[in-house]
Amino acid sequence: MTITRPRGFRAVGLVAGIKSSGAEDLALVVNDGPRDTAAAVFTSNRVQAAPVVWSRQAVADGRARTVVLNSGGANACTGPDGFADTHRTAEHLSGLLGISAQDVLVCSTGLIGERLPMDPLLAGITAATEQLSSGDEADAAASRAIMTTDSVPKTAEATTASGVVVGGMAKGAGMLAPQLATMLVVLTTDADVDAATADAALRGATATTFDRVDSDACMSTNDTVILLASGASGIAVEADELAEAVRAVSADLARQLVADAEGASHDVHVVVRSATTEQAALAVAREIARSNLVKAAIFGNDPNWGRIVAAAGCVPEAVAPFDVDHLSVTVNGVEVCRAGGAHRDRSEVDMTPRETLIEVDLGAGSATGDIWTNDLTHDYVEENSAYSS
Amino acid sequence: MTITRPRGFRAVGLVAGIKSSGAEDLALVVNDGPRDTAAAVFTSNRVQAAPVVWSRQAVADGRARTVVLNSGGANACTGPDGFADTHRTAEHLSGLLGISAQDVLVCSTGLIGERLPMDPLLAGITAATEQLSSGDEADAAASRAIMTTDSVPKTAEATTASGVVVGGMAKGAGMLAPQLATMLVVLTTDADVDAATADAALRGATATTFDRVDSDACMSTNDTVILLASGASGIAVEADELAEAVRAVSADLARQLVADAEGASHDVHVVVRSATTEQAALAVAREIARSNLVKAAIFGNDPNWGRIVAAAGCVPEAVAPFDVDHLSVTVNGVEVCRAGGAHRDRSEVDMTPRETLIEVDLGAGSATGDIWTNDLTHDYVEENSAYSS
Repeated sequence: MTITRPRGFRAVGLVAGIKSSGAEDLALVVNDGPRDTAAAVFTSNRVQAAPVVWSRQAVADGRARTVVLNSGGANACTGPDGFADTHRTAEHLSGLLGISAQDVLVCSTGLIGERLPMDPLLAGITAATEQLSSGDEADAAASRAIMTTDSVPKTAEATTASGVVVGGMAKGAGMLAPQLATMLVVLTTDADVDAATADAALRGATATTFDRVDSDACMSTNDTVILLASGASGIAVEADELAEAVRAVSADLARQLVADAEGASHDVHVVVRSATTEQAALAVAREIARSNLVKAAIFGNDPNWGRIVAAAGCVPEAVAPFDVDHLSVTVNGVEVCRAGGAHRDRSEVDMTPRETLIEVDLGAGSATGDIWTNDLTHDYVEENSAYSS
Repeated sequence: MTITRPRGFRAVGLVAGIKSSGAEDLALVVNDGPRDTAAAVFTSNRVQAAPVVWSRQAVADGRARTVVLNSGGANACTGPDGFADTHRTAEHLSGLLGISAQDVLVCSTGLIGERLPMDPLLAGITAATEQLSSGDEADAAASRAIMTTDSVPKTAEATTASGVVVGGMAKGAGMLAPQLATMLVVLTTDADVDAATADAALRGATATTFDRVDSDACMSTNDTVILLASGASGIAVEADELAEAVRAVSADLARQLVADAEGASHDVHVVVRSATTEQAALAVAREIARSNLVKAAIFGNDPNWGRIVAAAGCVPEAVAPFDVDHLSVTVNGVEVCRAGGAHRDRSEVDMTPRETLIEVDLGAGSATGDIWTNDLTHDYVEENSAYSS
């Protein structure tokens, strides 16, 4: 169990007929309270899908009762008609649940620029409300229904010392980028917390987990991470305790997103140390993580530190002050570059494990930052040239 | 004829034994004067190869007599020893030619982090000075000797109304990026011009040609573009006339670089119109050109405008003010997106030509900017995972 493991939640996933494949494509998560605390973060892309525009204003009051998620269509770049579709979706669900439409959050994922098929979607929502339940089966079906090119559903959970439970599910397998990925995440907790506490926990968690994933530098129009708190545990948990559990579940899900990135054969962890600031460290880590030449080399099991150093050198001095002559690069534990030049032989590096660890020391300060990415593979090209998404 | 077509130049290309393949790997271009005017622009990567560091200071006085170029090794990230190698190279050649080492420019390209084999290099330079000549054969050999993963040599020339000739050769087939590519370019002219005029012509030309090529967003440590002017025509050409000829030759070479980019199956021209400023237009064009999802879609002959719009939306508002609802996208002449939403059907777009034209109208002003890039293909991944460069 995951999203309904915290007390006070029900969920469902089913086939509404939005996807032409006939796979599950509609999920609901309902918070039965007593609290209806909600927080959310959204894509920073200026092109925002209709459900993002809707959910952003709906969650502004820190409250929500339910999230409806569909795969099979992003409802992005669909204009006023697309927004009306999202509005109708929320109205329809709120009528069935006897709540305000303003307490319905909506998430969509799939192809940009196409209208959603509203008849099957609304009929699916009607059916979904009759099948809501708690337990493994509901959780599994909901996590499957939000998949697009994901190869596996992604779920996680954590329990705090005081007994509060946090559960979560995520989808995302490409367009994974800074300030969120093509990624829908729903987190649930039975903690008895107010909106400000939930919001702080969620923002703190995303900043160090989902925001650190940069699979292919492409930022989606639909990214949404939602936290719902039911208060059903009756435990007024400390803010820090909740924050840590939300962060742990987010980190677990983020790691699963990286592991399932489209066509990847290596999960790459870029850690930049001895930077002047965390921001500088992250800028260098992100530049390395975004280098197609670095990513292709890793696919070829080549610890090509020259490409890593060249990528680091593309970061402006004003963003990350460091001296190239003090830079070292360690790949999977072997320091292949020291003081800006060749050190241990690249043949000593074992590149066969799925996880590749690139450690860069800037020799400029004491701050650290890390980014997760993937290698650039034939399968990435194949999936993203053959799949219109 | 190309680089020795302007009067006053000799060149040579030969096998020095730097490349293990046994292919040509050393080129010389000598300016016999009477002028020794020179200008150059270099990579803005903070990691600069030894020959870049050398040539930057050598050309600072606006004069140079010769350029020696090697493939088979970048001499980057090689520390003080690598710089000493470059220095020795310049000293050796200057001794043979009876000139100052300060009048020798050096360019290297190949793998980062390895020392150059100095014995074959210096012996090759000695042999080269004995084989300098003007004409097709010398030009062809020189342009071949600077190739790495290039599939064809790249040369161009232009003649101005007043009879001044500009010739050029270039190498580059990957790591092609903003503010220059992994790219070595030597331009020659017999114009009778001073260093300031040559410098202005070169900087103007690179800003609108080589700097607009962004094959894979990876900026090299060795990029160098050099212009040598011999004055041998005796024609004191107008600055504008020279600038236009230098620009024309640079544009020709830049287009050839795009056409030969590693593994590409489409040359992609991204034109952004109706921006508030040229800088804003270029920022949007570059973001689209750098999107792996856009590039993979083009490889798949998919005019996926949603990915184009999503990429445009990643540019911060402060950099490029525009309203997504006013944005249109035209791919190969078909306006697939108007007012931020779907317009003509994507099936109307013919993606089979090698050249793909993406036109984005921001509806925000009157400035235009364009970037050339390539699609993301299996062959790109193959070349860059199998080839250690």
